[in-house]
Amino acid sequence: MPSLTEDQLDLFRATNFAVVATLGADGLPQTTIVWVDEEDGRPVFNTTNKRAKGQNLRRDPRLSILVWDKENPYRYVEVEGVAELEDDVGTRNMHAMSRKYTGKDWHTPVDRLIVRVTPRRIHNYDDD
Amino acid sequence: MPSLTEDQLDLFRATNFAVVATLGADGLPQTTIVWVDEEDGRPVFNTTNKRAKGQNLRRDPRLSILVWDKENPYRYVEVEGVAELEDDVGTRNMHAMSRKYTGKDWHTPVDRLIVRVTPRRIHNYDDD
Repeated sequence: MPSLTEDQLDLFRATNFAVVATLGADGLPQTTIVWVDEEDGRPVFNTTNKRAKGQNLRRDPRLSILVWDKENPYRYVEVEGVAELEDDVGTRNMHAMSRKYTGKDWHTPVDRLIVRVTPRRIHNYDDD
Repeated sequence: MPSLTEDQLDLFRATNFAVVATLGADGLPQTTIVWVDEEDGRPVFNTTNKRAKGQNLRRDPRLSILVWDKENPYRYVEVEGVAELEDDVGTRNMHAMSRKYTGKDWHTPVDRLIVRVTPRRIHNYDDD
């Protein structure tokens, strides 16, 4: 099982954006931009049960998450892995995520999912 | 067949970055950041035969490409579609792409592929 380095985890800890790719019912990859964070060495993001991402991950938990340095998109890390889903009880995780990025609680505190990613493959890109 | 609007095409015409998601041999989605452009209403990017992206697309041409406004990552468009591959003879396409983003020809003019994306589904995201 590969581990993310501290430099790579820092990309998830900062207020960077990430793209998550999941698999649709027809096997087509789907992508969206998400807020991210890090928890015990794993990438974390938050979605809803209603969105395609949530539905896709319940069907097939395999995903790729790519986070880039917002000051330098030539510096990024891609993590291919498996999602573990947990109901975001009381929207605590999404409120924390929203406070990290906007300074405020999340505006629609219903029906959210915490997604934690266990890495299977890690690719690092850096133009330095 | 859905069509991209002029606003959406402008995201591909500008010097924005995009994430491309392809499918690995094991079905896992893989993502990387690419330079992009637009040609006759279709997203275009460039890769190599050697890279996972090129190999994945030869095996399964289905992909998702997501381009965001570099000034505002809350504004982005995702295109799910099918790749058409063409050898980049004389590296003409990659030189043009490199000049668009860096002002200079590409430094390693070998073995490149032009990838044009025929859209199947388009999702637009805008915080305005």
